[in-house]
Amino acid sequence: MIDQPIQSKDPHILNLAKLLKGPRSILYKKEDLLSYDCDGFTIHKALPKAVVFPRNTEEVAAVVKYCHNNQLPFLARGAGTGLSGGAIPLNGEVIISLVRMKKLLHVDTENRRAVVEPGFVNLKLTNSIADRGYYYAPDPSSQYACTIGGNVAENAGGAHCLKYGVTTNHILGLEIVLPNGEIIEIGENGIPDSPGYDLLGLLTGSEGTLGIVTKITVRILKNPEGKKTVLAYFDKVEDGSQAVSDIISAGMVPAALEMMDKIAIEGVEQAGFPVGHPLDIEALLLIEVDGIAAGIDDQIEAIVNVCKKRNVREVKVAKDEQERARWWANRKTGFAAMGAISPDYLVQDGVIPRSKLPEVLERIDKISREVDLRIANIFHAGDGNLHPLVLFDARKPGEIERALKAGSECLRVCADVGGSITGEHGVGIEKREEMRFVFNDDEILAQTAIRDVFNPNNLLNAGKLFPTPGRCAEVKMELKQAK
Amino acid sequence: MIDQPIQSKDPHILNLAKLLKGPRSILYKKEDLLSYDCDGFTIHKALPKAVVFPRNTEEVAAVVKYCHNNQLPFLARGAGTGLSGGAIPLNGEVIISLVRMKKLLHVDTENRRAVVEPGFVNLKLTNSIADRGYYYAPDPSSQYACTIGGNVAENAGGAHCLKYGVTTNHILGLEIVLPNGEIIEIGENGIPDSPGYDLLGLLTGSEGTLGIVTKITVRILKNPEGKKTVLAYFDKVEDGSQAVSDIISAGMVPAALEMMDKIAIEGVEQAGFPVGHPLDIEALLLIEVDGIAAGIDDQIEAIVNVCKKRNVREVKVAKDEQERARWWANRKTGFAAMGAISPDYLVQDGVIPRSKLPEVLERIDKISREVDLRIANIFHAGDGNLHPLVLFDARKPGEIERALKAGSECLRVCADVGGSITGEHGVGIEKREEMRFVFNDDEILAQTAIRDVFNPNNLLNAGKLFPTPGRCAEVKMELKQAK
Repeated sequence: MIDQPIQSKDPHILNLAKLLKGPRSILYKKEDLLSYDCDGFTIHKALPKAVVFPRNTEEVAAVVKYCHNNQLPFLARGAGTGLSGGAIPLNGEVIISLVRMKKLLHVDTENRRAVVEPGFVNLKLTNSIADRGYYYAPDPSSQYACTIGGNVAENAGGAHCLKYGVTTNHILGLEIVLPNGEIIEIGENGIPDSPGYDLLGLLTGSEGTLGIVTKITVRILKNPEGKKTVLAYFDKVEDGSQAVSDIISAGMVPAALEMMDKIAIEGVEQAGFPVGHPLDIEALLLIEVDGIAAGIDDQIEAIVNVCKKRNVREVKVAKDEQERARWWANRKTGFAAMGAISPDYLVQDGVIPRSKLPEVLERIDKISREVDLRIANIFHAGDGNLHPLVLFDARKPGEIERALKAGSECLRVCADVGGSITGEHGVGIEKREEMRFVFNDDEILAQTAIRDVFNPNNLLNAGKLFPTPGRCAEVKMELKQAK
Repeated sequence: MIDQPIQSKDPHILNLAKLLKGPRSILYKKEDLLSYDCDGFTIHKALPKAVVFPRNTEEVAAVVKYCHNNQLPFLARGAGTGLSGGAIPLNGEVIISLVRMKKLLHVDTENRRAVVEPGFVNLKLTNSIADRGYYYAPDPSSQYACTIGGNVAENAGGAHCLKYGVTTNHILGLEIVLPNGEIIEIGENGIPDSPGYDLLGLLTGSEGTLGIVTKITVRILKNPEGKKTVLAYFDKVEDGSQAVSDIISAGMVPAALEMMDKIAIEGVEQAGFPVGHPLDIEALLLIEVDGIAAGIDDQIEAIVNVCKKRNVREVKVAKDEQERARWWANRKTGFAAMGAISPDYLVQDGVIPRSKLPEVLERIDKISREVDLRIANIFHAGDGNLHPLVLFDARKPGEIERALKAGSECLRVCADVGGSITGEHGVGIEKREEMRFVFNDDEILAQTAIRDVFNPNNLLNAGKLFPTPGRCAEVKMELKQAK
């Protein structure tokens, strides 16, 4: 980072630099920009025009207004951990990095809410309020690094969203800079309902295409009185899937209900935090129950019994918090661990009705054989959110293409059984065309028309979230002419 | 209703009648239309042009297309139990009544969902699946009559929404007829997230201004293993308020946490289902806990202890399901019971941060003295959703005006303390101007711009939900000129 006079002749760089009052507020040299050419989705890369680091809402609004008035494309970026390419500057955008806006502004335990800036890291919120007995529920695996602003953009999920819901269920209010630089506040007190249209829900998960979030009011929860965690090893995937189904059918709502298959177990045992899982099982379940202490033991007993009925090889309850933490660390490094068993991997993110789990896993296995690439499965089984991880080697000709094909086909299977193409990672660049698996032209147009209201010149994060124009663009022209 | 040849010379009536295949599908005579001049908000009245009764989505779409092509204003109506005037035909609309579309289309217990037509009555859903051990959570007090389509339009709440969330938290998919007659499906598999913008959230609670819902996929829940209900009588309102605060602060989430004040108690004891509440107390709490059987007794004990600490006069646990049902029937007839103690009443619907409860109740009391009208309070205390009931006599000159003033001032108080102007009844006609208490012009414009995307000619339910044009309209012109 620099603090010297700007060494650029580009008037936009010079003007942008003037809008930001603090030191080290702009990057514009190619060598500095290279770190911003992609996010957690590394298959596409593109260089931004510049990266700016505003320190408050007014600076964000000033940069946005400048871009709006000068027709410069721009986009917002949090920690860059997104998995679908939402923060990649496809059009040479000015990147507005929100990492300097990272304050915890307010905690109100009485009304169960906290106010944070968008660059505040997810896990830090729970750490900051733990001593008062509270926590923030949405827990993406990247929570040690990802920002709450990014979580809002992607409507991030996590292992504990089975019981507690995804990000949108925990957002009570947003301050937003619109693409023309106007600042609005929405739903600040959104409990239980809020008047007018649900802009809060609309903005949450809009993948940075409708506005830039500059302040966030979140719901915080009281720590559960008790918590217990079960690990179950199955010789057959079908038995594991069936156990998942049985637990839910019995009316239990575990806080988390995770599954890993044989290849995934191989990965997590070779890297990160090995915990000694047997390598010859076909599936493991990691199940956590929380709530009123008195009810937990009964639920754990019921879960153990379901597993036994479904031919579990071994089932055990975490002895203490330390063992529980190790099991979770092992699970949460799952994606990264694929690096230990494959040079490259592509993670997908489909959703299916839980009852289709055995059928879908079988079809994913068929896809794996067809493209001749291994596919590991690590997933939030309780809510039917699958993460097939396609393992490949980018150095071998054709493997990237086959991996992308396999990923897309997995999503096709999810859509076919009445599911969807993303549970928590978003569409971004990666799944634009797959949007057609779940939406027809009219349904996509209803969405792009909303984008055009907020973002009429499409300067903010263009080219994301929707399929590239085709029939849609034609229909739109017809509609415009009809008006 | 008629089944004879149409006795009208109005070509629109004749044409509309041809679009509907079944018998008794249109009302157009003044005497038949009188029943449709208002809904549960009876202060404004207006006659529709006609009322049509389509039997399926295609008939709804045909009527909408006809209205769209002929510039006829139109709106959808469920059971007409809405409390903010959303179904009143302010502009002489063609009313599309959905009461003939009342089928339960599908129940899928394995994936916890059901599909209903919009005219299906709320309580019927729970009754239809009770034998399989399931229920539908949102429970507005009008649930014996109101339709799920209307619940979607208003994002209806209910006593048990403290724990389970309002309607929007239970809607997984919608089929919608757009204002131009196109049919789209959104979010059919919205678990846990869905790709693209959250149209499902946007449409839910849009008060019939963006489209007409023709099919609804809802989440159904497994019946809780156990359920216990507590009734607590307090000599002082402050003690009751403080008990609410203490229960929530202790980390408990009761299924319901309701409060009634002295005047409300007087009403429910004189009408409907009297249960023998003492008439000299200042407040009662009705608290229900549900979940795993093992945990319930501990929670009930903790709640009883909180009440004792807060000087409760008497606290008791329902002996059996019969007693529990009587307590709830007593509470749920609360609004209607006001008829026993006052010729007319106006119910309001504000939301406040729970911690402000004692302050707000005091300010409502002050408003009551200022306008010289009694105000009863029946409310969902757990989630800060107040229902001040202003009692008046429409026959006495000036009382309507004073009642409306008092209602508006109660909402002003809610907005002032960081709350909002509606928790579950919607804005409709009633609270259009009060939208300004919580939104500035830019924030309202962001919403009307979205309405204009869906409803560009404003033929669908015009004049609802937003303030009458003023500064907003000017700003909009400026924006249009700037483009």
